[in-house]
Formats: sequence, C-alpha cells, structure tokens
Amino acid sequence: MDKLDIIIPFKWKGAKSRLSNIMTLEEREEFALKMLYDVLTTLEELHKDEYSNLQRRFRDINISILTTTNDLPDFIYKRFEIIINTKKLNEALNEIISIKSSKNNPLLILMSDLPLINVTVVQEIIDRKEDIVITPGRKGGTNILFIKNPSKFKVDYYGISFKNHEKIAIDNGLSYHLYDSLLAGTDIDEKEDLLDLLVFGDGESKKYLEKLGFMAVSKGEKITLMRE
Amino acid sequence: MDKLDIIIPFKWKGAKSRLSNIMTLEEREEFALKMLYDVLTTLEELHKDEYSNLQRRFRDINISILTTTNDLPDFIYKRFEIIINTKKLNEALNEIISIKSSKNNPLLILMSDLPLINVTVVQEIIDRKEDIVITPGRKGGTNILFIKNPSKFKVDYYGISFKNHEKIAIDNGLSYHLYDSLLAGTDIDEKEDLLDLLVFGDGESKKYLEKLGFMAVSKGEKITLMRE
Repeated sequence: MDKLDIIIPFKWKGAKSRLSNIMTLEEREEFALKMLYDVLTTLEELHKDEYSNLQRRFRDINISILTTTNDLPDFIYKRFEIIINTKKLNEALNEIISIKSSKNNPLLILMSDLPLINVTVVQEIIDRKEDIVITPGRKGGTNILFIKNPSKFKVDYYGISFKNHEKIAIDNGLSYHLYDSLLAGTDIDEKEDLLDLLVFGDGESKKYLEKLGFMAVSKGEKITLMRE
Repeated sequence: MDKLDIIIPFKWKGAKSRLSNIMTLEEREEFALKMLYDVLTTLEELHKDEYSNLQRRFRDINISILTTTNDLPDFIYKRFEIIINTKKLNEALNEIISIKSSKNNPLLILMSDLPLINVTVVQEIIDRKEDIVITPGRKGGTNILFIKNPSKFKVDYYGISFKNHEKIAIDNGLSYHLYDSLLAGTDIDEKEDLLDLLVFGDGESKKYLEKLGFMAVSKGEKITLMRE
C-alpha cells in the first residue's frame, strides 16, 4: 500500500443553499471556497515530516477535487487534480471508484465542508486496520469514508448514509469501523453549524465568518449566533 | 489511584425547557429521566469483567447524582448516591470538588443529557495520561470533564465553557487533552438534537422519543424531525 487517493466532492456555484436565509449567494460561494481551502490545508500537512508514520504507509498522496465545472479559482486549479463530472454524487463517485479500483489503491472520500478537521483525525482514520472506516456526521450523513480496497465497495450518500455504508460493508463481507469525532462529524450546512465553526475553528473559513460580522454570543447557558 | 468518583448533575423538575415547543412538561421530565437512565446504564457497564483494563485502574467506582430535590424515582434513589445542593451548577460542583479533594481521588463530571455515550468513550477519557480531559459539546459546552487531581481545579460551566476549562488548566500548570467525540459531544437540548438521538441512539431515551411519535425523515439530502 503505497499510494493514497483522496477525493473531495465540491459544489461551488450555488453552494450552501441552506444558508441562503443568512448569506447572499456571493457570500455562500466564497464561504464554500474558504472551507475547501481549510480542508486542503489540513490535507497538505499530511505530507510534512513530523507525520512520518503516515509517510511510511503512503509514499504518495494524490488529492483530487470532484466538481461539475472547470471554472475554479487558481489556488485549486494549479495545485490539485480536477475531476469534472456532472452526474449526481453517488453516480460520479461510483464511476471514479470503478476507474480507481483497477489500481487497487486505498481511497479516502472527504467532504469539502469539514473545516474543523485536523491532521490527527485524518491520520487516525487512515491508520485503522478495518477495510472500511465511516465517519458519521450529524444527523447521520457520511463525512469521511475510507475504502481500503475500492474494488469491493460502492457508495450511497442519500438518507442516513452512514447506515447505508455500514450495510454495504456487511453485505460485502468487509470489516468496518465507525470513527467517532465531533470535529470531523461537524459538516457546515445550516445556520446552527456556523456557531460550531466560530467556537471550534481557527482557519480561513472562520475568519471569513468573522469578517462577515458573525459571532457566537453567550446568553446564560445558551450560545447563539449574531450578525453585526 | 484506586477509586473513581463520578458526579452526574441532573435537573428533573422543569427539565429540558428548550424542548417546550415540541414536548409537554411531563414528556420533558420523563425524557430527562430516560436519558439519565441511558447514561447510568453505560456507566454500570464499566464494572463488567470485559473492561478489565479499567478495573485494574479503578478498584472502585462511586456514582453520585447531583440534584436540587430528594424527590427522585426509585431506580435512582435506591442504587446511587444522591447529593442534594440547591446552589447553581458551578458553586455546587466546586463545593463538591473542595470536599472530594481531601481524598484526592480522580473525579469525572458527566452531564445527564448524553444518551449517546458508550463504554469506549468513557474508558478512553479516564485512560488518558493528562491531568485534565475536556470533552467539548456542540457550541462549546463541556459535556464530560475528567479531573485527575481535584485539589488543583475549579469548574466554570458558563459560556463557551470548554475554553474556560482549558484556561483553568493552563493557569494551574496542568496538562490537558480535548477529547474529540461526536457521541459524547452531542448533548440533547434542542429540537435538532433529537434527530441525532433518533439516528445514533439505541437506548431507552430513543425508544421514548419513538413512543412519542418522533421520527427522522429523509427529504433528499436533508433529514428532518417529524412527529406523528
């Protein structure tokens, strides 16, 4: 096992529609980019010397952005592989899995709206011994999925998808682990999630929220989101 | 180190007021009890033989419920120590810490609205080597706090309290760890949290929600809470 493929599905145009009650379209698209930037920054740390354990396991890490348009900012376009696929998420990913599975490299599928992840989280996931590592998100989504042998697996991201992925692992006779992390389990989709980014974040997406005037305010026991 | 004190603050009368838009007072109080029951059930598993590592570290585990009234159901009253203190949370806990600190046993403060915790979570926390282990909850609360030496620590649960506890550790020259767990980070306070209990839970509090007619329904990418 010497190469790790990382795929990051990314929606830019019209991104984060569930935040449209508190952000304009331009703000949402910029915010989605900042979150992707934070995720990529964390993943690039995996290459650094201090994470030598990882370097031993994976000589090479290849990061690809899966998206529907080739109109992406330079910082992405120039540094990462871009996979353009206009199909729906499951179909696009399963197509990639089919292609990748011939090489049989492990595959890590990681969502772009996880600005709270850190190197420890990613390293712990890829260091697991099981065939499949599922990192559930709030309300039952799958935020990070590690597939050691892509030839035996298909994804299904609809509904309570961590349970779908559990079932697919069982049906294919694969061992699996549910990786329990608040930081990796917090995907930023709705107004309430912004609070967690403000409270736990320290990257560009948090700074962008602050620039827009968002802040976490304590009222007695309760923490609420305010905008200046 | 042979004895572990576990303190569970528990509010019964008028509990879970932030759920009053979707549950009656009686339902909320019953729900709070069911969550406490799930927490206690998990903690009682710590005594079992298969968790021999823990048994070696702590010969004895003493579980106390901190509450404001002695009018509690039998299943609690008969099996656990009850500490009645009508002061506010910080004052009551710091009073207990003062009393306990003479014996210098490690102290685990664990909230009663954490029905998703499991034995692995609790064991990993008390197995940590640091002086203080802080388990943040969503929006920055402190859901579980492990204090190896209570004579050197005070609690401060208001506001973004995991940061308060980080600062108190630093100010007292204590090492600390932030324990990252979605299951332990999910305290059940608001309507949206019920979804996580329905999706990830398997105890009495989840069954009670189902009995009340609550369910998690997939609508495309979104999961929403419905009541029959």
